[in-house]
Amino acid sequence: MDVLIAEFVDIVGKKNVVQGDRLSQRPKHYLDAGPTTAKVLVSPDTTEQVSAVLKACHATGQVVVTHGGLTGLVGGDDANSTQVILSLERMNTIENIDTVGNTMTVQAGCVLEHVQNAAANAGKHFALDLGARGSCTIGGNIATNAGGLSVLRFGMMREQVLGIEAVLADGTVMSSLNQMLKNNAGYDLKQLFIGSEGTLGVVTRAVLRLRPASTSVQTALFAFDQFSQVTDTLATLSNELSGQLSAFEVIWNNYYRVSTEDKRDSFSPPLDSNYPLYVIAEACGNNIERDTHAFQHAVEQAAEAGSISDAVIAQSTTQARQIWEIRENVGSAMRDDPTFLYDISLPISDMEAYVAAVEPALIKRWPDLKFFCFGHLADGNLHLQIAPLDQASQGDDELTAKLHDAVNQIVYEPLTKMGGSVSAEHGIGKIKKAYLPLCRSTTEIAIMRQLKQALDPNGVLNPGIIFD
Amino acid sequence: MDVLIAEFVDIVGKKNVVQGDRLSQRPKHYLDAGPTTAKVLVSPDTTEQVSAVLKACHATGQVVVTHGGLTGLVGGDDANSTQVILSLERMNTIENIDTVGNTMTVQAGCVLEHVQNAAANAGKHFALDLGARGSCTIGGNIATNAGGLSVLRFGMMREQVLGIEAVLADGTVMSSLNQMLKNNAGYDLKQLFIGSEGTLGVVTRAVLRLRPASTSVQTALFAFDQFSQVTDTLATLSNELSGQLSAFEVIWNNYYRVSTEDKRDSFSPPLDSNYPLYVIAEACGNNIERDTHAFQHAVEQAAEAGSISDAVIAQSTTQARQIWEIRENVGSAMRDDPTFLYDISLPISDMEAYVAAVEPALIKRWPDLKFFCFGHLADGNLHLQIAPLDQASQGDDELTAKLHDAVNQIVYEPLTKMGGSVSAEHGIGKIKKAYLPLCRSTTEIAIMRQLKQALDPNGVLNPGIIFD
Repeated sequence: MDVLIAEFVDIVGKKNVVQGDRLSQRPKHYLDAGPTTAKVLVSPDTTEQVSAVLKACHATGQVVVTHGGLTGLVGGDDANSTQVILSLERMNTIENIDTVGNTMTVQAGCVLEHVQNAAANAGKHFALDLGARGSCTIGGNIATNAGGLSVLRFGMMREQVLGIEAVLADGTVMSSLNQMLKNNAGYDLKQLFIGSEGTLGVVTRAVLRLRPASTSVQTALFAFDQFSQVTDTLATLSNELSGQLSAFEVIWNNYYRVSTEDKRDSFSPPLDSNYPLYVIAEACGNNIERDTHAFQHAVEQAAEAGSISDAVIAQSTTQARQIWEIRENVGSAMRDDPTFLYDISLPISDMEAYVAAVEPALIKRWPDLKFFCFGHLADGNLHLQIAPLDQASQGDDELTAKLHDAVNQIVYEPLTKMGGSVSAEHGIGKIKKAYLPLCRSTTEIAIMRQLKQALDPNGVLNPGIIFD
Repeated sequence: MDVLIAEFVDIVGKKNVVQGDRLSQRPKHYLDAGPTTAKVLVSPDTTEQVSAVLKACHATGQVVVTHGGLTGLVGGDDANSTQVILSLERMNTIENIDTVGNTMTVQAGCVLEHVQNAAANAGKHFALDLGARGSCTIGGNIATNAGGLSVLRFGMMREQVLGIEAVLADGTVMSSLNQMLKNNAGYDLKQLFIGSEGTLGVVTRAVLRLRPASTSVQTALFAFDQFSQVTDTLATLSNELSGQLSAFEVIWNNYYRVSTEDKRDSFSPPLDSNYPLYVIAEACGNNIERDTHAFQHAVEQAAEAGSISDAVIAQSTTQARQIWEIRENVGSAMRDDPTFLYDISLPISDMEAYVAAVEPALIKRWPDLKFFCFGHLADGNLHLQIAPLDQASQGDDELTAKLHDAVNQIVYEPLTKMGGSVSAEHGIGKIKKAYLPLCRSTTEIAIMRQLKQALDPNGVLNPGIIFD
């Protein structure tokens, strides 16, 4: 190992090879102050350095765990004391913005929010957005195919990426920095790396797709008496706001209550707290007068059809922000320890029955259990935050792990039959690995292994992530 | 081989094993009446039959060429007398339409236009559209990642596919019939099969994404004095028509002239024929009054900024159709034999210089050459139709092939430096294979080979397509 560290020092310079106190003082991830465990953390600042580091590791079978912004939440960034962390944090240059071709070329360590701001400064829009925007990096967004708040209109990270440069396990640099919307010359190799959680290669640069900027944003909060109203309203808004509907976030009553009750004294919930379901809808355009009228008209159409029980349309950006805070105030539903977080997807037509079955099943087992539910309805994506409040396991790590497994079983098991997924956007990482077979077949997992074997025969890149 | 044919008869029944006259009477592809060459054509009607056929072929190393609608134009459907054609034509059932989840599940042999119509009948829109819509199949669209006319707004076929079922070379059935917009549970295996031209597996079923239907369509033809006006107008329309601009098709003067002059007597070109550049723009929405106003306003904005020299906005569906016919009347630029067809992509900011360099370079070499150029500007995709009118090669196949190579060199060579592609949408097939290295690196092609080797070790699926 010492020989390898000496090699790293040669490649990236001494101060970019982090060990000892400097390493352990680093946070483990954005919900865990640390210490970070690893044999050593290496921080290259060019693709050539990444290549040299991987080449050295590949030759000796040294395992490498790649770090982006550490916001993944599934243990994909978790390293042990025998493993090398490869951090892309210094590769954070925005290299080029093409306002005619609508592309931006960046290094993988760029923070998402910086990319969003750079696009905005150039009069454009970068269409990925998620809560961790201030920490997560483009490389991590690509490795995990990040989703977030505007997938309904713009798609996931996969649809924001035109080209990538990646370094393979053996140090080979694959440059596929395509800039065009259309390119069918051979296999579209970037697709293989997007969403493979760093197991097939390390993304070092990317060409991102930019969109026209929006100057007008319409936001509303709706309340519903029944689930069929929610899907009817989604259909009405999708039709009426053709191409402009950018968010349609569903909130079940339990989460609406805890989030609004948790607010400052000056805040009163915009709508009565007794409805079973709420939705935050947003549309973006570029003509404030026309867009306001179109949005109001769409809401009126839904209301006249009887598919909205109550509604408030934000009349200012302050009101819009207050509405969004109800959705984003996730901390309010995480006050109890442990709270288990879920990020599932399932067909929209199965959602109502799913929640109606899972919540009572959990409460039957843990009578004090708290169950909070919200999500990106139009994407089929629900987030659950579940606190079992199980007295017996309090303070006992082993029992808590068992408790987690028991809750997982109840949450995940029904997904198999309906073709749902144990991970809509965060990925599998280490913590959902055991549940992958619930939503992917033996054949699919065998093909994943074949691809891993073909591209990383020595198993040096994030082994133990997704599958063993 | 006789043993194999007997196996095929057992699997699909005698009448679905096509040989002899029944085979040779079939058209080779939609521009070639035939005869079709092959050892035999097998036409299964279930996934199990496809699996059984491939298993038999894999065991004996029998090469299989998969047929969809035969509209690919790059020789991907070309079989010789030792090869088996696997035709998906009988697997043409639309299995399910989910109007809440906005999905449609189909067999791969469904014709695109039938799928479009089924979506429309359900009040939805299937967002892939191309000239060959009446013949091409969903399986072929997936295998070639088809592009077409509305990529700007909706993306290529890749973005219309949520899940696939595919049969691997050895007969293994991989079912990945995901129905959600978000699913990050492990590698997104379908991406590997989309656009791989049938070399990694045979797609048998797919879950397609549906969109809201549009009831209002705005169409216009613009004329420009210079290229910078074209990109300025694209930017203005993209902004003003936020999310609704669905087509932005550029036409160079030479193609505008030949296409409009070719029309019936009653037809006069909607705009003067002396402008160097034209564009057909289209936007779709759901509120005729609002959309008409928005489109007119956008055109006025572009005109006031000086970026449109002349314009006509269609006032009826008849006028809109006449405008689109200028673009779609591709036969008018294919009167000379041979006419070579190109389907390249390149960064939008390089387009003007590219055309300005390539056309004179060709004419310098072949003084009588006809050069027609049009394309999906916003996607970076140009179609060239080039008739060298070279006396010496007339009627001589070998000299014509050499002529084709010589034209290819001049068309493709400049793309390398600007990061362009020799195939924007049709794929590589056999006829562009020699030029793949101009736009994909040795490393990329090596990785493609690795993937092929991993998934089709016996090389039975469409060998010699994309690379040797």
